[in-house]
Amino acid sequence: MRYVLLISFDGTHFAGSQRQPDARTVQSALEEAAGKVFVSPVRAALSGRTDAGVHAAGQVAQLDGETPVPPEKLREALNRLLPPDLKVLASRAAPAGFDCTRGARSKTYCYRFYTAESELPLLERYAVRVEGRIDAALLREAAERLVGEHDFAAFRATGSSAKTTVRTLYSVRVEERRVMGAKLYEVRVTGNGFLYNMVRIIAGELYAAGCGKARCEDIDLAFKTGDRTLLFRTMPAKGLTLEQVRFDVPLFGAQGGQDGII
Amino acid sequence: MRYVLLISFDGTHFAGSQRQPDARTVQSALEEAAGKVFVSPVRAALSGRTDAGVHAAGQVAQLDGETPVPPEKLREALNRLLPPDLKVLASRAAPAGFDCTRGARSKTYCYRFYTAESELPLLERYAVRVEGRIDAALLREAAERLVGEHDFAAFRATGSSAKTTVRTLYSVRVEERRVMGAKLYEVRVTGNGFLYNMVRIIAGELYAAGCGKARCEDIDLAFKTGDRTLLFRTMPAKGLTLEQVRFDVPLFGAQGGQDGII
Repeated sequence: MRYVLLISFDGTHFAGSQRQPDARTVQSALEEAAGKVFVSPVRAALSGRTDAGVHAAGQVAQLDGETPVPPEKLREALNRLLPPDLKVLASRAAPAGFDCTRGARSKTYCYRFYTAESELPLLERYAVRVEGRIDAALLREAAERLVGEHDFAAFRATGSSAKTTVRTLYSVRVEERRVMGAKLYEVRVTGNGFLYNMVRIIAGELYAAGCGKARCEDIDLAFKTGDRTLLFRTMPAKGLTLEQVRFDVPLFGAQGGQDGII
Repeated sequence: MRYVLLISFDGTHFAGSQRQPDARTVQSALEEAAGKVFVSPVRAALSGRTDAGVHAAGQVAQLDGETPVPPEKLREALNRLLPPDLKVLASRAAPAGFDCTRGARSKTYCYRFYTAESELPLLERYAVRVEGRIDAALLREAAERLVGEHDFAAFRATGSSAKTTVRTLYSVRVEERRVMGAKLYEVRVTGNGFLYNMVRIIAGELYAAGCGKARCEDIDLAFKTGDRTLLFRTMPAKGLTLEQVRFDVPLFGAQGGQDGII
């Protein structure tokens, strides 16, 4: 039987989501906890990979196996066994034919960076301090260029092996807020799929555009040529949070982790 | 010479602000860093104690000693030496007669708790999950009872030795927000001084009033009798953040850490 979980984790001390030998990962932590609640061998899968250090407010996972625990009670049963930095927010039986990897229709990620004279210890866990002055209007103008269907070949880490690099971004929204004397920028990207490191490269390019280190035309040229070197650097993992994964069927009602964390 | 610092720290891994033998404290971390920048023995003081686990967005500290570093450059010089969870946001020479302990006129603390079916890993560092349903109107009604000059004898931990237990609260504000499917409550208390554990006891009592476990009359009776047992439990340290300390003279302009962190 297949179960679906809405999970959240603080990625700081995880070596990413995907199982690796001798590393603490989200997948292995889930399987370890589930192993104590399931009466059969159990396999966990996530709706997509996240890198070491990336957080999740609302990732979707599935468990395959047999357990006497009713689907809706799995949440509590697993949470008693899971570490404080990984929790199940909701659990249910999977709808017929559900597959959390192939079924995901869109995802929303949020990238957070801030400008301040000093690092702010209370922001550093989920955001990245950047240099320079940011013009929010320039940032938003660059963000608009990204919306729509494009070939994002230039927006992926080398070594990534996706079959096609065409993706559609439904929205790229920028929020600017004052927090503890700093200016915090939240870049929220919703799309039908993401290449390896794509959101972190987008965040870097938007930051660069916002402080005049890059021009909007660079983005157009990057789409045309697929040349990664036209774009700014990949931003650090800790500023990235996977907020929501959507499927054709609504899985958990309003609960999807779509709001901000800072 | 005396220098004033605006500092911020994540209290998770500090054994409180005050120096203790063989413990990592804010005061000793400051003195250790300053010891490498000052040419004389240097003493650090903070505008008040905070417990192990309590955070600060804008605490005020002073350093007494001699250094060739210009006052405004102390920030950068110290930040290079300080750990990531403790940073100086601004530095300057102290005004004549300034004393960060005796000169503090008012302080603002924020206590954060939230209701959700599961613990939320991305909130747990700076907020505390509580049980039950909270009626924000009841919470605000109880908060209003606390405003003004009162004898807060019932609102302090046993063993505290303040000379007088009369304090004035200028405001107690409650904000309710939706964050990742949870309801987050921020209780912001500004007053002329605080007894040991006072804000954490206030937060506990307001939570209890909000979910019907306590009545507003209990607060009135606690003021009258000084009886700690009339009030709810002391809330955990990690939900508490010292946001701002005010003096007769403005020290750092707009920078005071007064905004929220979540």
